[in-house]
Amino acid sequence: MSTASVPARTVICGVGLIGGSFAAAAKRSAALGHVVGVGRSSANLDVARDRGLVDETATDAAAAMRDADLVVLAVPVETGLDLLAVAAGVVPPDCVVTDVCSVKQPMCERAAALGLGARFVGAHPIAGSERAGAAAADPDLFVDRVTVITRTSATEADTVERVADLWRSIGSHVVELEAAAHDRVMAMTSHLPQMVAFALGATIDAAPDPELARVLSGAGLRDTTRLAASDPAMWTSIARSNAAHILEAMDVFGAVWSELRAAVAAGDVGAMVCVMEAARRARETLES
Amino acid sequence: MSTASVPARTVICGVGLIGGSFAAAAKRSAALGHVVGVGRSSANLDVARDRGLVDETATDAAAAMRDADLVVLAVPVETGLDLLAVAAGVVPPDCVVTDVCSVKQPMCERAAALGLGARFVGAHPIAGSERAGAAAADPDLFVDRVTVITRTSATEADTVERVADLWRSIGSHVVELEAAAHDRVMAMTSHLPQMVAFALGATIDAAPDPELARVLSGAGLRDTTRLAASDPAMWTSIARSNAAHILEAMDVFGAVWSELRAAVAAGDVGAMVCVMEAARRARETLES
Repeated sequence: MSTASVPARTVICGVGLIGGSFAAAAKRSAALGHVVGVGRSSANLDVARDRGLVDETATDAAAAMRDADLVVLAVPVETGLDLLAVAAGVVPPDCVVTDVCSVKQPMCERAAALGLGARFVGAHPIAGSERAGAAAADPDLFVDRVTVITRTSATEADTVERVADLWRSIGSHVVELEAAAHDRVMAMTSHLPQMVAFALGATIDAAPDPELARVLSGAGLRDTTRLAASDPAMWTSIARSNAAHILEAMDVFGAVWSELRAAVAAGDVGAMVCVMEAARRARETLES
Repeated sequence: MSTASVPARTVICGVGLIGGSFAAAAKRSAALGHVVGVGRSSANLDVARDRGLVDETATDAAAAMRDADLVVLAVPVETGLDLLAVAAGVVPPDCVVTDVCSVKQPMCERAAALGLGARFVGAHPIAGSERAGAAAADPDLFVDRVTVITRTSATEADTVERVADLWRSIGSHVVELEAAAHDRVMAMTSHLPQMVAFALGATIDAAPDPELARVLSGAGLRDTTRLAASDPAMWTSIARSNAAHILEAMDVFGAVWSELRAAVAAGDVGAMVCVMEAARRARETLES
């Protein structure tokens, strides 16, 4: 990335909901110059170009990165780890590399191990949708949302500021955290609800009479399972990359679940209310 | 209830979200004559009267029911069971008694045991909100929603039609089911998501840093825990009244949860995708 504040050539690998929305927002705010969208699906790339999210499309990541000032990895985290290795081999010495993946510690560690530490900054915008692809991209997706920035042990201060400024320029509130702290909290606030929604959806799928279940379902079931429409490829990658923290969160949930089941089995109102009131407290905090 | 199609005097016990919305909708469509709202909280009754949901308020259910043509029990199910006994002792011989509780078999059985079987019909509108009280009542709450009707072994056909017509007159789609079938399906589609939301909320409440969890939470966590704001008194009553079916649904969920946890622990993409794809199928059915 040159000393000029606007990167002349940005390569965004993955022009899906997040990558496409970032591209659209940054182009709108004139925070990026020429933007190349890289992907494997030509159908999705065509949508991205037709919608004006990117200026150019490509399918060869290494070739596209060769003269980049900024590389943004907006792909499932395991693909991101692979693309870091590609970037390490080809990007110019002053190119800044960043990502938008939901798991940060493996990305920061891999970037450092590949010698990209000084010019790598992880980023994770806390925004999204169960929808996917360039067709769902929205330049307002990050407005007034939090974006977490995580540095490696070697990231230069100037690199951190450049990436933070990019997110601020598209309306996001930037918070810096240690990568491990980010991954532990997100396991609880994002990855756990996702696993709960998948398990609840799969339970409903096993209902003896699906049509009757559909007729007798209301807004509560739809809200509680909304996340279950999310992309399995993205979520298996997150689950594998943040397994220890996710298992920890799943086990806290499992213990509460057992407590609630025991209370229902015993008809113990006091024990049920204990769980229900804790849940209401959490809701009040979330809404505040 | 007289042979005239519009009950002259209706007593609604519980003028909360459901009772208040029913009263407002039925008065608007001229399906009810004079409506008396009965409750314990004078503050809530004042709101109900000030909003015009009911014509008159009272705190003594027995006295109010004595000359009723129609009694509607819109209270937590265990309170409803108690009020059936009150109604059995005082209502005129041709008074129709119905309820809006989320659990139907105990209500139908109790009504029959009390000798009210011929003129009792259970009803359950599949509509609601995490909000409560007369202040949240909305005459459009039941429009285009399903209302399940359940008869006792002794309910007269005319009584069924009168109650079904009332719900149709306020825009609801009426479906008749056996009470036990209703309770089994609702355990899966309504009571289970509620328990999941309570357990997830209580898990988040136990997060080591609640403020950081709040900052790093998005729409997914908010949707998945929305039901956790619901009234514990209503839900402990449902849990006690439909415990066997709820435990059965909780155990199906528990088995899926264990399967998903094992898949995450093993990093087994195929096993994770199996649960995730089942969840997506259920979502597609719910949206269809």
